[in-house]
This record gives sequence, C-alpha cells and structure tokens, in this order.
Amino acid sequence: LSSARVAVDAGGGDHAPEEIVAGAIRAYEDGIEVLLVGPGLTGVPSGIEVVEAADVIAMDDPDPAKAVRSRRQSSVAVASRLVKEGRADAVFSAGSTGAALAAGVLEVGRIRGVARPALAVVLPFGSSPTVLIDAGANADVRPEHLAGFAVLGSVFAEVNLGLDKPRVGLLSVGEEPGKGNELAKQAFPLVEAAVPSFVGNVEGRDIPTDRVDVVVTDGFSGNVVLKTLEGFGKFLLNELMGVFTATDEAREAARVLMPGLLELAGTLSPDSTGGAHLLGVKGVCIIGHGSSNAEAVRNALRIASSTVEAGLVGAVTRRLEKVEVQ
Amino acid sequence: LSSARVAVDAGGGDHAPEEIVAGAIRAYEDGIEVLLVGPGLTGVPSGIEVVEAADVIAMDDPDPAKAVRSRRQSSVAVASRLVKEGRADAVFSAGSTGAALAAGVLEVGRIRGVARPALAVVLPFGSSPTVLIDAGANADVRPEHLAGFAVLGSVFAEVNLGLDKPRVGLLSVGEEPGKGNELAKQAFPLVEAAVPSFVGNVEGRDIPTDRVDVVVTDGFSGNVVLKTLEGFGKFLLNELMGVFTATDEAREAARVLMPGLLELAGTLSPDSTGGAHLLGVKGVCIIGHGSSNAEAVRNALRIASSTVEAGLVGAVTRRLEKVEVQ
Repeated sequence: LSSARVAVDAGGGDHAPEEIVAGAIRAYEDGIEVLLVGPGLTGVPSGIEVVEAADVIAMDDPDPAKAVRSRRQSSVAVASRLVKEGRADAVFSAGSTGAALAAGVLEVGRIRGVARPALAVVLPFGSSPTVLIDAGANADVRPEHLAGFAVLGSVFAEVNLGLDKPRVGLLSVGEEPGKGNELAKQAFPLVEAAVPSFVGNVEGRDIPTDRVDVVVTDGFSGNVVLKTLEGFGKFLLNELMGVFTATDEAREAARVLMPGLLELAGTLSPDSTGGAHLLGVKGVCIIGHGSSNAEAVRNALRIASSTVEAGLVGAVTRRLEKVEVQ
Repeated sequence: LSSARVAVDAGGGDHAPEEIVAGAIRAYEDGIEVLLVGPGLTGVPSGIEVVEAADVIAMDDPDPAKAVRSRRQSSVAVASRLVKEGRADAVFSAGSTGAALAAGVLEVGRIRGVARPALAVVLPFGSSPTVLIDAGANADVRPEHLAGFAVLGSVFAEVNLGLDKPRVGLLSVGEEPGKGNELAKQAFPLVEAAVPSFVGNVEGRDIPTDRVDVVVTDGFSGNVVLKTLEGFGKFLLNELMGVFTATDEAREAARVLMPGLLELAGTLSPDSTGGAHLLGVKGVCIIGHGSSNAEAVRNALRIASSTVEAGLVGAVTRRLEKVEVQ
C-alpha cells in the first residue's frame, strides 16, 4: 500500500461525479489511498474517506479564479485545502482548469521562492518524452518568470522522468541566441543562469525530438503548442482511418497493423500521462482533462501517488533554497 | 502562356542554385514567365531571362535585415527590386527567411495602409485548408497589428482559396472573449471590427478543423504553431514507419495501404503549398522552405503565377482603401 494520500475533486469534470468516483475506486483497488471530495457522494467503498463539500464550480464558470476565492466550500477548494492541512499529499481535479489552478495557488500555497507556479505537461514522444512548461497557467509573464519555469521543469524532469541532467531549451523562433520575441530574448541569459544544462533556443520542430528534455515558454505559447498537438493528432487519426477503410483490401490490411497502431495511439494519448502538474506549490497538484473517464482518473491518481513518493515537492523546495543562496 | 512574370532568387536556398534553376526551368516549361536572378548562372534556356546579381546573402547570415539594407546587389534584393521596377509581378526566394522578408518590405515596398506586412501560410488540412497569419514575420506586435493581419489574411483567403466570407479567428487559449494574454484580449474588439466574418477566439485544436478559415496571431506564436506541426508530422511519420516495418506481415499489409498513405503525406507536405506569402507588399512575394528542391520550386512558381493572376495585390490595396475611409 502506497503511503501517499490523494484528495480527489469528485465534483470537477465533464463526467463528474460518476467517472471520477469510478476512477478513484480503481485507484484505491490498486493500493492508493484516496479521499473523495464532493457533495452527496454515494456508493463509495468504506476504505475511501469521503469529505463533504457543499458546492461545485462549473466547468464553464466565466471567472473561475474569483469563484475559488469566494466559494471556499467548492469541491476543488476543499480538496486543495486538504493538502494544505496535511490531510492529503496530492490533489487531483478534472474540473475547470482555471479553478484548479487558482485552488492550487491559493489553497495549497506557493513554495517559498516561486513567483509564479506553472503547468508542466509530459509530452509522450516515444523514447524521448518532453516536459512542456508553462502549458497554460500564466498567459502573460516577465523574462524572470521563464527562468523560474526552467528551474521547476528541470527538477520535475529529474524527479519524474529520472533524468540526471535534463536538457532545458527556451522555445523561440530560431536557434541563435538573438532570435525570438522580446520576451524570449530577455529571458535567454536568465534561463541560462538558472539551470545547469541549458541547450539554448529550441523551435517547435525540436519538441518531439531527442534534442531537448524540458521546453520552457510562457503559458500562452505553451497552451497553443499543447492544443495544436492535440488537434493535429486528432486530425491525422481521422485521415488515417479514412485511408484504412477506403476499400475492403485496405480494411483487411489495416486489421493486421491495428495492434501496433493502437499501441502508438495509446502512448500518444493525453490520458496516458495523467494530466498537467501544477509546479511550485506545496503539494502535488494534478489537473486532468475535462473529458477524463475512469481510466484516465485512475492513471492520474497513480501518477499523483508516485510523484509524492518520488519527493517532488521536497526537491523543488531544496532547489529554490539553493538558488536563493546564490 | 501566363501573363505573370516571376523573379526567382537563384542564390537562396540549401540547394541553390542547382535545384532553384531546375525548378524554374520546369515552371518555364509549364508556361510561366520566369526571370532568374543570381551570380554567374549558366545552362539556362534562352526563353528565361537572366538578371545578374553579384552577391548572395548566406542562409545563416546573423543579421539578414541589415545584410539586405547594405548589400543591394544581393540576389534576393535584386529579385525583389524587379517587382518594384515593374519588370516582374512576383518574387520567389528559398533563401534566408529574414533576408527575403526584409527584401520584400524594403525593396518591393508596403501597400498604403499596411503597418506590418505579415507571412501567411496555407495549412493543407484536407478539405478545410486554413490560413495562418502571421507565421513569423513579426515576433512582437501591438493589438492593432493583429487587426491588420486579419484583413490581409481575409483578402488572401478570398482570392487564393476562393472563399466568399472567410471565417477569421483570433488564436487564444480559450474560446470566450475574455480569455487570452493581454495582446489577444486587447486585439479581440479590433479584429472584430476589421473583418466581416469574425468567429471569435480559436484554440490550437481548432486549426485543423472546419471551424475557421483564417487564424490570426503574432509572428512568434504563429511560427511556433507552424514548426510544431512540422515536427510532430515528422515524428508521427517516423513512428508509423516503425509500425509498418515491425514484421514481415506488417510490411506486406503496409504495401497495400501505401498509395493512400503517400497521397495523405503528399497533401500534408509543406512543398504542396509552395511556401509562405508575404502579404501587404506591392507584389506577390513567396518565401520557400530552405530545403526546397526543384519540384517545390516549380510548385511555388505556379502558385506565384496564379496568385498574380487572381489579383491579390489589387484586392488588398482596394480593401485597405475601404478600411481607411471607414
């Protein structure tokens, strides 16, 4: 049995609470200690602690940050507060991303030395997964924030991907140091100073390659990258399906290839990585896709648990103490 | 025979001048009037006019804009100047993108009312190609520039894609008007006022869909999108090849599917769209991929010619007169 306790926002998600509860039960059966947070939850096995939360913030709430501040009994706020109170080590929500981000920053709280917590996503590119940070928490940033993201992403890659010296690149529009927008150009020397294995500017085309382990950018560009990959992946899958079903002969041939193709699709699926990690807060905080089904929730809770056990929060805290001393 | 004359920078490109000249000859054989510009060109058929240019700006010139200003006898500058002088209607270069951009703006010259010329790329997504603007000419922009890009992209989609009322979307990180970074939020009402068929914010995942015809963004984000698509496409092609060659049985099945897959790969290839269009200058100005081979050059020259004949520059000029009056 894992020693990590994960608080689950049962109120957040397109398929909440049913799929969230089902996923939490599967994770519990896998040996993960789960606390389910939400209003009027039923059918929960006795081994799972239920924490009542009277309120739920809707997926399409127009001002989720404000909602989190004013509705402290919302399921995402209560679940996040369990981490602050030491009753849980991690929190998972598949609800409104804005609400989960705000709850992470406000309720879990920032680690000393972190100006801006940021979202890290592991892009599952075969043998060379890449961490993208910030994937959408901070739409407008200053150059020094990118240096902070580089530190967070670097520690994350060490702890969660097991890399010794993760190569950190700054997303830009040309490889030479002078290329980029003002933000990237000003951030370049700051990122260089902040992490030991800086490989300089990288471009969008480098993301799926083995050139770089951590790609640092602002939350606007990062979110654009993430969603562009998502959309292009869906488009291509659809086009491939067209080729595979064009004739009887093609259908027959596609059947032979299907196991390999499904395996490829599985490794590239966002569900396989369990969601985005809000880094820089005093607990493991994972935000799942709104569409998360039970299996995606189970995966995310497994990753939440292993991230706690790997000691991510302690590692970030220690790294920032060092950076401050310098 | 086409009435459009296309000046070709024979000095620019990874495979210059051989592949550029070979592509120009093929285009000439297709009936396109070509002027080849470069130093010491030989083996050119008598029907193709050769314009001598003493100098070539290197692909990796660290300050291509400065090089264009100071080296007026460079092939890209001379080719662009032919348009200004009325000796050509279009210019094509596969050389340094920065140099081609600078030559387009400085030598061809801006259309009255255009604050910032911008790069438009047609993303060949099956039945719903999408125009991305700005794909990399302006890394830092102000909100009003995005409104200008929307007008340029809209006219381009009308003229080059034959769309009656192209739907224009503003690239952001959420669909609601209040979502985005400061730039996107401030640009929203300006873009809305500038084009008739504004569909609001769009996300990266909408780009390959039928939701939007023209995606407007700054040149940093646009270039990141373009190169992310390029890199992800290459990665997936590689992974698919792995599946297709894993076993003898898979190889056999893949052979059956190959014609359909090659057709799909062909339509998605950047070469099929001929390059990026610099919009807002007083001539058709197309910038090809540095790796352009003869066939890519031929394609680009065909598109340059048809863009001249479709009357793009006149259409942009008239639209901007109207916008000014308002």
